[in-house]
Amino acid sequence: MSDCKNNNIFLVGLMGAGKTTIGRLLARRLDMTFIDSDHEIEARTGATIPWIFEIEGEASFRRREADVIRELTSSRGIVLATGGGAVLDPASRALLAERGTVIYLRASVSSILQRTAHDKNRPLLQTADPRRKLEDLTAQREPLYREIADIVIDTGRPNVQSMVQTILDQLAEQASAHARSNAKATMNEQACISLNVELGDRSYPIAIGRGLLDDASLLNRHIGGSGKVAIVTNTTVAPLYLDKVAAPLRAAGREVVPIVLPDGEEYKNWESLNLVFDALLANKCDRKTTLVALGGGVVGDMTGFAAATYMRGVPFVQIPTTLLAQVDSSVGGKTGINHPLGKNMIGAFYQPRAVIADTATLDTLPARELAAGLAEVIKHGAILDAGFFDWIEANIGKLVARDHAALAHAIARSCEIKADVVARDEREGGLRAVLNFGHTFGHAIEAGMGYGAWLHGEAVGCGMVMAADLSHRLGLIDAAAVARVRALVQAAGLPVVAPDLGIDRWIELMEVDKKNEGGAIKFILLKPLGSPSITNAPREQLEATLKASVGAPSS
Amino acid sequence: MSDCKNNNIFLVGLMGAGKTTIGRLLARRLDMTFIDSDHEIEARTGATIPWIFEIEGEASFRRREADVIRELTSSRGIVLATGGGAVLDPASRALLAERGTVIYLRASVSSILQRTAHDKNRPLLQTADPRRKLEDLTAQREPLYREIADIVIDTGRPNVQSMVQTILDQLAEQASAHARSNAKATMNEQACISLNVELGDRSYPIAIGRGLLDDASLLNRHIGGSGKVAIVTNTTVAPLYLDKVAAPLRAAGREVVPIVLPDGEEYKNWESLNLVFDALLANKCDRKTTLVALGGGVVGDMTGFAAATYMRGVPFVQIPTTLLAQVDSSVGGKTGINHPLGKNMIGAFYQPRAVIADTATLDTLPARELAAGLAEVIKHGAILDAGFFDWIEANIGKLVARDHAALAHAIARSCEIKADVVARDEREGGLRAVLNFGHTFGHAIEAGMGYGAWLHGEAVGCGMVMAADLSHRLGLIDAAAVARVRALVQAAGLPVVAPDLGIDRWIELMEVDKKNEGGAIKFILLKPLGSPSITNAPREQLEATLKASVGAPSS
Repeated sequence: MSDCKNNNIFLVGLMGAGKTTIGRLLARRLDMTFIDSDHEIEARTGATIPWIFEIEGEASFRRREADVIRELTSSRGIVLATGGGAVLDPASRALLAERGTVIYLRASVSSILQRTAHDKNRPLLQTADPRRKLEDLTAQREPLYREIADIVIDTGRPNVQSMVQTILDQLAEQASAHARSNAKATMNEQACISLNVELGDRSYPIAIGRGLLDDASLLNRHIGGSGKVAIVTNTTVAPLYLDKVAAPLRAAGREVVPIVLPDGEEYKNWESLNLVFDALLANKCDRKTTLVALGGGVVGDMTGFAAATYMRGVPFVQIPTTLLAQVDSSVGGKTGINHPLGKNMIGAFYQPRAVIADTATLDTLPARELAAGLAEVIKHGAILDAGFFDWIEANIGKLVARDHAALAHAIARSCEIKADVVARDEREGGLRAVLNFGHTFGHAIEAGMGYGAWLHGEAVGCGMVMAADLSHRLGLIDAAAVARVRALVQAAGLPVVAPDLGIDRWIELMEVDKKNEGGAIKFILLKPLGSPSITNAPREQLEATLKASVGAPSS
Repeated sequence: MSDCKNNNIFLVGLMGAGKTTIGRLLARRLDMTFIDSDHEIEARTGATIPWIFEIEGEASFRRREADVIRELTSSRGIVLATGGGAVLDPASRALLAERGTVIYLRASVSSILQRTAHDKNRPLLQTADPRRKLEDLTAQREPLYREIADIVIDTGRPNVQSMVQTILDQLAEQASAHARSNAKATMNEQACISLNVELGDRSYPIAIGRGLLDDASLLNRHIGGSGKVAIVTNTTVAPLYLDKVAAPLRAAGREVVPIVLPDGEEYKNWESLNLVFDALLANKCDRKTTLVALGGGVVGDMTGFAAATYMRGVPFVQIPTTLLAQVDSSVGGKTGINHPLGKNMIGAFYQPRAVIADTATLDTLPARELAAGLAEVIKHGAILDAGFFDWIEANIGKLVARDHAALAHAIARSCEIKADVVARDEREGGLRAVLNFGHTFGHAIEAGMGYGAWLHGEAVGCGMVMAADLSHRLGLIDAAAVARVRALVQAAGLPVVAPDLGIDRWIELMEVDKKNEGGAIKFILLKPLGSPSITNAPREQLEATLKASVGAPSS
């Protein structure tokens, strides 16, 4: 069971089991907000549930219901009564189980028949033989309710108040048991955070927290269905986490196909991708197979692209194990491989079904890679959230020391900021360019030094200092802001002095950046710290920045 | 100029030029229907244009406008007044130019200022200096209006009635000039047909007709923008049509990159795809490059997949040059390549911007390939449109003799039927399976005989006869319907006697079909002719069909 309950209570069970009545009373006793998902759907559509069934059909209603559940479960401190069929959707089940304490109100067919007689607002019961229908529904749904229930309450007893008291008692008991288990496992005290990336029917959740991979059922819930699972990872990550991820899936009866690729950016190519296809085909993986990316950015990009193109698209789930992958590639849907003539030249925009970021995986990450991930965290604050930048400054010591609460917050806020940009510009039409802050200079460093000499995050870190310097020279920010960016990048363990490539080579390298249009270099600058400005720069100021960055180390 | 005018008149020009007033009068005089695209947008959204600009922004309004224009231009016999900025969208320009006679009402800035004073319903003019704004708009849009105009009318003169008379005179003059040019070029009398594939923001037009590649501006209009154009074709098609397609693009000032691949299904693999990527990168093609697929199904599938994945997606246009590609792969968005372990195993769903099917390219098609294309035409009738099946029966002689009007109708109706299925099930969730009528048996023939021995269409033709036979044995259709299917397939020049693979091998081959679920073979059968039924079949009847199809030739 995950810790990530967000202080919510979710009521599940068949129609007529009393979810709304009991939910209201529970919310009153616990001083929480009560929400009924059916009412929420009716309020949003301006139509009654039976009308939606009649006009749009059940499948459309289920989509609306899944959307509402995805959104509502990301709240905190609510009591939510769900529709009887909400558990049919695997993603909804995963979110309910993860984001609240699930109470299954179990009722007999006879008692439901008694309560729902003549209730025209129950669309699925508009049938000739309601008892038969209810028995079928029970048979179908009972296992799904039980699968996610923390507490099962039999609603046979007549007194609603005493039933509520029973629930309150059981909740208290669970809470104290939980406190005891936490006292034993202090490493596990870390709260977990659950976010949504809102992209219409391609929306997906991100779970962030310490020890999520220890939750045996979390991944299985997010995969859904009963298809095979192909776990794509590399030779470095496999010995650390492959068994941990595969074992619970196998225990749940799934066929797991492990695919271990060589480690390194130099293997992000067609040959490695083909190893994935070969393994999928050799193991007779069909369209219901889910691909799981277990590793850093290279594994994520390649697995995502394999998922986008295997049999024209199969589902995939990301388990990023580096800070860079957790804060950056887990949001945005960019997948792909390199071509000998250019990085990431072949790929697709393809969204995962879910992202699971276990901060415990950062314990094994080399310090240099941790710093590289922090570069993207700093970027998100610098370019879009001055308050977050302040927070990073105040907590950079904790972040470098791998304090898990600080890391979880940094990851969550980075994902939120990036998700907001991506939601507004999924396919990189315009706004998304601001995420390239520091990258124009950074790409030049990577290419100029030879790929691999500097980590991408290191080049971006130094590139942000250079972009801040240029922003100041163009009068967009003051000198104090430049100093803050430089100090923070340095405190993160990143380089702040640029390599001396020579002015002409610098400019030549920046001119080939694939985001340029019509030859002019497009810079993402700060105006002020916390806000982006997309602009060209006069040659004179650009050269001044290059000279200052190369020649004058700040410390 | 294309012939495909659908008997429509489209009015373009700046706001205040008089499009609505003149359009109404024209429609009355010509007894046509008048539609104002702005009114249509307001009616659909329930909001005024200024409100849409205010709340959603101009980009969103332009998308709504492009949608409305795409739909309205597919009507026949309308007079359409477009919004002043409708021509900004390249796809809208292409459709306006293609689907009607475009009249540009040209007005001076002063006269517009006079007419629009105090009209709050003109969102772009809510600015401090309306004259300056109007002058800018004129400079920006005048070339776009002229680009697509068949007739330019200066609206300076005061009398509206006399202006309408001038337009009527010019229309009459154009009509008679057109009749004269047709008398000279009898080969060009064929009407052209323009359809839409409706897939929301991925909708696209299909133009079908004889001599479309002779229209120097048609392709250029559909590509839009000013980016490079990479034409992907093969060694067989290049000598026939590459120059014809490339020359007008070059004449319009575009950089054209020809990419000629080896011809044949055996080259539908990663190595050929990589030749495309190599050429794109070597020629510094950026994200604004459009890929054009010039050839049959293999070229279309590979070019579409290259477009789907080059820099995570660039636009592409299909120019199918085989009947199979024109009736089948031009609708549906299926792209991909083969893997040594399976056909079409790696790919993506990716829609073209437009499809241009010139029936003149069928003149050079080998008879066997023409017949293979007719298999899919027959399939569309048999499975979804009994009336179309009747029409094919009545016209099969003309189709085999390559009568262009008959071919154009067969292609158009096939595309319509398939587009309707795809619109309801873009990513092959369920309904789309009916398009596999004849394919379960057909795939077994292709695999059993070794790929390439039978053409795909030949195998499907024979497979349809077998599926009809099985339908009859299961009591779904009568013997007369089976005889009709067999006779039509035979008349198309396709085989109706199946190869003798042996019962066990037949069943083994059908069991590996990638659409099966849980081991049982899923058949698409007829119930009755013209309607699909998806079902399993008892072994006894299946064996009877196999024995009968192999042993007893019908003629």
